Formats: sequence, structure tokens, C-alpha cells
Amino acid sequence: MFRRSLKLLSKETITRVKPNTTIVQPITSSTTVINKNINTFENMQPKKSMTIDNICQNVRNAQYAVRGELVIRAESISHQLEKQKKEGSKVLPFDEIVYCNIGNPQQLKQKPLTFFRQVVSLTECPELLDNPYIEKIYPADVIARAREILGSINNTTGAYSSSQGISLVLKSVASFIEKRDGHPADPSEIFLTDGASTGVQRILKLLIKDRSDGIMIPIPQYPLYSATIELYNGSQLGYLLNEEKGWSLEVSELERSYNDAVAKGVNPRALVIINPGNPTGQCLDKANMEEVVKFCLNKGLVLLADEVYQENVYVKEDKPFISFKKVVKDMGGEYADLEMVSFHSVSKGFVGECGKRGGYMELNGITSDVKAEIYKLASIGLCPNVIGQLVVDLMVRPPTPGDSSYELYIKERDGIYDSLKKRANLLNKALNSLEGVTCNPSEGAMYAFPQIRLPKKAVEYAQSIGKAPDAYYCIQLLEHTGICVVPGSGFGQKDGTYHFRTTFLPSEEAIEGVCERIADFHKQFMNKYK
Amino acid sequence: MFRRSLKLLSKETITRVKPNTTIVQPITSSTTVINKNINTFENMQPKKSMTIDNICQNVRNAQYAVRGELVIRAESISHQLEKQKKEGSKVLPFDEIVYCNIGNPQQLKQKPLTFFRQVVSLTECPELLDNPYIEKIYPADVIARAREILGSINNTTGAYSSSQGISLVLKSVASFIEKRDGHPADPSEIFLTDGASTGVQRILKLLIKDRSDGIMIPIPQYPLYSATIELYNGSQLGYLLNEEKGWSLEVSELERSYNDAVAKGVNPRALVIINPGNPTGQCLDKANMEEVVKFCLNKGLVLLADEVYQENVYVKEDKPFISFKKVVKDMGGEYADLEMVSFHSVSKGFVGECGKRGGYMELNGITSDVKAEIYKLASIGLCPNVIGQLVVDLMVRPPTPGDSSYELYIKERDGIYDSLKKRANLLNKALNSLEGVTCNPSEGAMYAFPQIRLPKKAVEYAQSIGKAPDAYYCIQLLEHTGICVVPGSGFGQKDGTYHFRTTFLPSEEAIEGVCERIADFHKQFMNKYK
Repeated sequence: MFRRSLKLLSKETITRVKPNTTIVQPITSSTTVINKNINTFENMQPKKSMTIDNICQNVRNAQYAVRGELVIRAESISHQLEKQKKEGSKVLPFDEIVYCNIGNPQQLKQKPLTFFRQVVSLTECPELLDNPYIEKIYPADVIARAREILGSINNTTGAYSSSQGISLVLKSVASFIEKRDGHPADPSEIFLTDGASTGVQRILKLLIKDRSDGIMIPIPQYPLYSATIELYNGSQLGYLLNEEKGWSLEVSELERSYNDAVAKGVNPRALVIINPGNPTGQCLDKANMEEVVKFCLNKGLVLLADEVYQENVYVKEDKPFISFKKVVKDMGGEYADLEMVSFHSVSKGFVGECGKRGGYMELNGITSDVKAEIYKLASIGLCPNVIGQLVVDLMVRPPTPGDSSYELYIKERDGIYDSLKKRANLLNKALNSLEGVTCNPSEGAMYAFPQIRLPKKAVEYAQSIGKAPDAYYCIQLLEHTGICVVPGSGFGQKDGTYHFRTTFLPSEEAIEGVCERIADFHKQFMNKYK
Repeated sequence: MFRRSLKLLSKETITRVKPNTTIVQPITSSTTVINKNINTFENMQPKKSMTIDNICQNVRNAQYAVRGELVIRAESISHQLEKQKKEGSKVLPFDEIVYCNIGNPQQLKQKPLTFFRQVVSLTECPELLDNPYIEKIYPADVIARAREILGSINNTTGAYSSSQGISLVLKSVASFIEKRDGHPADPSEIFLTDGASTGVQRILKLLIKDRSDGIMIPIPQYPLYSATIELYNGSQLGYLLNEEKGWSLEVSELERSYNDAVAKGVNPRALVIINPGNPTGQCLDKANMEEVVKFCLNKGLVLLADEVYQENVYVKEDKPFISFKKVVKDMGGEYADLEMVSFHSVSKGFVGECGKRGGYMELNGITSDVKAEIYKLASIGLCPNVIGQLVVDLMVRPPTPGDSSYELYIKERDGIYDSLKKRANLLNKALNSLEGVTCNPSEGAMYAFPQIRLPKKAVEYAQSIGKAPDAYYCIQLLEHTGICVVPGSGFGQKDGTYHFRTTFLPSEEAIEGVCERIADFHKQFMNKYK
């Protein structure tokens, strides 16, 4: 049979391999070797139309380390552990994988907030409202809230909502922002999203035409940014956070990054600020934020304010969370209309409802015709999932004094917050006690990002097997302890430095053990390559 | 203050307008006029960095009529109606908007399946399992299913799952496909998605590098395809369905479309088939599907099989739904490994859980290294929402004989199906009785797509005000009756023909009234332009 030759290919790799039998695709280097052998062997088979060389190369180039190689290896080890458990054998020196690669609190046993889940549960089954036992199951304020929500969504969570989001929830978000910032917020400037990620991706899609458009991102950064910029064929313009000064943000470095881009013919379109920082955990103070705002207005940059960790601030007395929305409105004048998009999420804070994929973005100073394009992008995806939208409503409108669920809510909220703060400090101390390791305090967010000064021999060995030295360290940590963290190279770091990111989300009972295992491994590793 | 000039702009439109105060952005032509006036007036204000002319023009060019101009106008009228209701006045000749623009059954009062909602409700609140009243609220099989699901997700719906999806659900989907097709299905080839749309968008992202890559889509088509191809800067290669022969799919037309593309230097990468058709409602027979498969293999095209309406087939005796997966496996040999991705969703069928954003795609014959890239794209979005995933599980694994919920499930399922079939026939008959209107039978899906032969004067008038003639007809219909449908131009149609798409989702009580109102309006419209 005639098969059209793929004209556009410069290199035709023939790839026809058996479907992989594990759920998650292993893409470790060893698999690559195996595939290559199969390919050679199966050269006689008909060619495939879609190959790694002729798909969109931006997809191939994009990297997302938070769920990358390390995690795929961890999931594969996890299957081994299950098998080991069934067979009663014991080959691996640990019993379970501890996933510290991602801010996924409920995976590590953080309990959901009772009020939230009760409202969602009842909203899913409106006919329960007529059940005679209903008051024995749900508190009065849960029943009232479920009735209110159902009244606003045609009595069902099963219909597409408006693409911008449920009107009631948009209003709740606006009230929350007003109360938080002391400035008006307009529901028509808010879009609900499936987590914050979808919002970030939509705005980047809007801003990026091609490689001539650049987006300024912190280094280190959360790799959603670098991956999405690559997917949309834009230019990543890194600005370094100053590790020596607690990962501080310096305007001189923003200037340097901006000027470098312009010199290369790249047009900087937007500045991404993650506050509190991810993976770095630092919190910005107001003076610093004002400098950033001035810089953006001066340079004509859209400010993208990733504020998903706004409730995860552990130095509230010194550096309370301040939103960029508040800063621009406090500054007033032309600053008040700075073009800006702020992002928030139900996945973080003390809510931790990652699986719900709820979030919102607020526009500031964006023209109405550009906003119409954002609406269109949202409409192509139909609407954010309705339950995620409802969880946003619950996050921004929790029980208040006098409500039957109020006391429990406060107890649960404060319990989670206090425990996160305690674990942050504990992990920080443990990391700083290790040879050659320094770690800035986690003022906010859910992560520590220690610098590890690797022995020269370890660096050379890693390089000899084609691995980034910190990736090698992290793989060794995983294989010796079951603890899954992400190498600094996945976030970006100053040349010649090595880091990893770990969450401090294992439970209070577990985290001391995690610290001990990291310490033991680290000693062994350092001794081995001394 | 110095403001960098936007070098890359060919035309600098200065747009600085007050934030719009309605939730949904009106982008009607009248608004544009207003904005332009404001722009002129505010020429003195500082320039905006992000303007309609310097954003990614693919976004600007993309069109998604299903939630486009008509719907935005409908939502604006809906606000007027609310106001009218409050004030007790009566200006508009109808009381409510009937949204026939989109397949959103629960918006039009289709009841959700009780078993599905009970399981989700209980899964959200695991502590209810210990409540002494629980058996008075939920049937035994609901409790058992909730326990099973919770056991597979670490007892919480609030954690990110694997990016590919929850292992239990992947296995359920594979079993469902095996049973449906009589051929093995492999959970590792399945990806859960937020509705089918997310899956379609990921695969198109993979296939499209630039304008030199073309995707073959039916005309008329569901505009997710045209919009996404434009967003990713690919080429849309239309092939016409034959309206005279019941929207049949003809391989000669596929050949024509393919050859035209190649002659223009465009490389066709994939063929999209929507079966049952959207907006056209036709169902393919097996012989026709085999031709399509041969065509794809012969031309080296990836087959994208949009099968979200597989349960919406109203001619089961003559043309039962057959999946492309079954066809390629039945054909065997080299056909069995055709590169193909099939899509399914919880939004359609008798489930109709649009707001849940649940779906899956199954890969066939895709190489493992390309699959690893699909996995990476999924991981950048973290994971599909967990509740949507659970609804997929319920869809593919409903109650079985002997389960306490079985009888109710069957009653509800058959009730919805029978009613949809009845309404399809009713609407079809009503449309065909109108002057100058012909409508092929809706063999499947949720839509009728009648051709309307508009009077010459109506066509000329519409063109004189810069409107597509069918869009003008639909706006008039909306403004006179409150019925919101989508013009054929939003889906594509043969030059010189005009259509609209309407769902047949209004309830049985409502649909006769809808038909009457369309008939009355149509008569008036035809008389006016006679």
C-alpha cells in the first residue's frame, strides 16, 4: 500500500513499539534504549504518521519537572512496593513512597474542611433536602448554603455554567477581594478557572504570538510558566532571585533581564511574580511590591501576580500577605490601572482541595476588547467544572460567627495552618543542619528549596552519565529512601548551584522520620563522593 | 513617564475604556461603536500594553459560535427579563430565554441520574459512612461503590490524581470498551480528561506545528475543532458532508479535500470524524467507516474519532452505534494498528453531566514516545478534576441487575432516551413543515440542523448591515421569541446555503411551544422579506 512520505521531516525515525503495559508511561533513559532496539528490529513495519520528530516540537521541548522523570520513577517504584507487599518479600529498604514533589496536601493525609465537603455533598443530591433525616446528617448552615447555591445554578451541578463562571460565585469572589484589600472589586473582572493553571495558560496564550514575545519569570520559578511559554512558542526571560538575601526580588535584576531581552530583539510583554514564592517560599514586602509596580508601568509590562499561596504565610507579623491589587490601588493615579491579572486557587492555603481544580483570576486595567478575547478563550473550553467553582465560593465565603459550622471551621483552619508552620520550621532546621546545605526560611507557600553543595566527584559522575547533578542526587534519594523531591534544575537556578524542592506536607507524625531519612541519605551520599 | 513604544505594532489602537459592568462582556457591534467613541475621547490617556492588535492574533481569529455573539446577546436579554420581572413591566414578548444553542440537558431540566449523584455525594463526605442514619439516606450499592472509590483515591476527592487519571477509573473504562467492542482495551492507552474538549485540544496541539500542518474536519463541524486549529496556528481542511444524501460522508470528497491541501503545500495530519454527527446528527454505517479507515491508513492520517454522542442514537435498529475502535480491530491486519484517538464524555448521552467536565480518550496505535508527550501535556495541567473522573467511572460502570439501584437506573436511563427520541422526531417534523425549510432526520446526537432558504431580500438586507444572513435570522428569532439557536455559519456550510443548529433538549412540556414559536416567527420573517 502506498504511504505518503512525510515531506516535512528532516529525519525520519521509525517508531513502532508495543503499547506500554504500565499505566504511567516510563520515560527513563533505560526505556529509551529499549525502544531504540525495538525500532531497529521493527524497521520492516509500516511507518507511523505521528512520530516524536514530526509532532509539534514545542511540546517535545517543554519540561514539567514537578510531575516529570522523578515522579514517573517514583510511581514505578510504588508498583514494585505493592508487588513486594503482596509477595511478602522485602527488596527495597522502605515501605512507601513519600510524595514531596508536589503541593498535594490531601495526598499526604491533610483532612478536608468539613463544612466545604458537607455543602458539596448536599449540593450534589438536592433531593436529600426533602429527606426527613437530613438534619441529623448536615448542620443547619450547610443546608442553608446548599439551598442558596442550588438556587443560583438551576438546582443542578450538572449543567454548563456561563463560561466566565457562576454569577453568585463571581460576586462572592469580588466581596472577598474587597474585604481583603479595602478597595472595590468588580465581578465582571473575575473569571473562574479550573485551578489557577488554566487561567495562567489562557493569559499566556493571549500574550504570546511567537518567539519575539517574552515573558519575564523568576529563577527559580514554578515550571508551569516555563512549560507554557515553550508550548506557545514564546521566549522565557529569567530574572534571578537573590538567594544570599533570602530569595529577594531586586529591581536592578529585573532591569538587567529586561534590557538583555530588548538587546536580543525580544519584546517583553509581561512580568510574572509568584508571591509567596514557589519554590522559594519568600514573601514580598510592600516597598518591594511598589518598586515592581513602577517597573511594570514604566516598561509597559502586564503584571501576572501568582498569589495562590496567599494564605500560606508563616511570618504574618513581619510580612503579612498583601495583594498586588491592593498595592496598585493604594498607590493610586496611573498605577491603579496597571494592566494586571491576579491568580488564586482552592488547591493551596488551608483548603488544599487540589483534586477539585478550582480557581479564579481577577483582571485589572485590561481593555474590554481584550477581555472579550479572554471570554472567548474560556468559552472554547465551555466552562470551569462546577464543583470547583463551588469550592471557590466556599473558600472566599466560609462560615461566620454565629453559623453552626463556624467553630469547627476555625478549629480545622487554624489546626492546618499551625501545623504547616510547625512543619516548615522543623524541615528548615533539619535541612540547615546538613553538611554543605543551606536553606532560606520558608516564609510562605509549602516548600523548602535548599542549596546543596555537591562534592566535585558527584558532579562529575552525574555528568558522565548524562544527568544534571541535582537530578542525580534526587534520584539517589528516591531510590534509597522512597522520598520523592524535585531537582532544582526543574525550576531553574543560578549556574553552578544545585538545589531541590521538597514540600513540608508529610504529617506531623511523619515529617521527623522524613527529615531523619534525608539526613542519613545525605551523609552517605557525601561520604561516597568525598 | 517614559513608555516604551510597542515596536511590533503595525497599527496602534489606543484603547482605554471603563470596565464593563455586566458579567458577560457584550461584544455586539453596537458596543464596538461605543468603545471606539470612548477611545477617541480618551486619546490623552496612557497607552495600554495589551491591545486587541498586539495580542496573539490566532486568539482573535478563532471563532466559537456555540457560545458566541448570539449567546452573549441572549444573556443580556436574560438580564433585561429579570429586571422586567422585578419591575412588573412587560416590554419583551416572552418571559424567558430558551437556550437551544448548546447541548446542555440539565440546564433545560433533564434530571441527573440518581445513582450517580448519590455516589458522588457520599464520596465527598467519607465520614458519613460512619453516620448511623446513612442507610436511611443512601442505598446499599451506593454505599458500597463510594467505599470502593474512596479506597482507590486515598479516601479523598481533594488530592491531585495521576495526570493520566485514577487507576481504578482507567481500568473501568478499559472494561467498558472491551465489552462494547468485543476487543481488548488497555488501561495504559486511556487518558481521563476534563470533558472531551481538553483531550481534543491536547491532541491537536501535538499534531500542529504551524500553518503547514492541516487537520481535515467535516463541514459542517463542531467549532471546537476550527477554533482550536486556529488557536494553534494550523490549517483547517474542510470536507463537505452531503446534505442531499442525509449528511453522508463520501470518500471522494475526502480525497478532494486531501488533494487540495497537498496542492497548496499543506500536510494533512489527521482526519476528524464526528459520529454521530454534530451539528448534523447522522450516524455512520460500518461499510462507510471501513472506507474511512482505509483512507486514513492509505494517506497516513491520524483518525480522531469524536464519539461523544455514542449513546444518542435513535435509529439503533438500522444503524447501531459502532466505534471506530471496533471497526479497525474487526478489519485486523495493518488496520488494527491505525493511529487513532477516540473521545468520549459524560456531558452527553443520557448522563448529561456537562458541569462535571468529565471525559476520556483512548489511544490506538500511537507510539510510546508520542504517548509520553501526551502524558507530559496532561501533567502540565496537573490532573483532570477528580469528580469528573468519578462520573466517568459511573458512566462506564452503572448499576447491574441485582444492585439495589438497578431498577431506578434503568427507568431513568430509558426515560431520558425515549424522551430524547420523541423530541427529536417532533422537532424534525415541525421544522420540515416550514416554508423553505428542509431538515435531515436527527439519527443521533442532540441537534437538528435545518437548511433555511432565505428570501433574497432578507439575504441582501443582512449583508447590507454586515451580518451573515443566517446569523441575522437567528438574532431575529432570539429577539422575537427568546429562543437561542446558532447560525449555520458558526459550523460551516456549503456556500450559498443557510442553516441553524438547535438542540431538541427543551422538556416534553416545552418543546411543542418552542416549535410553535419558531413556526410563527418563521412565517412572519418570510412574509416580511417576500
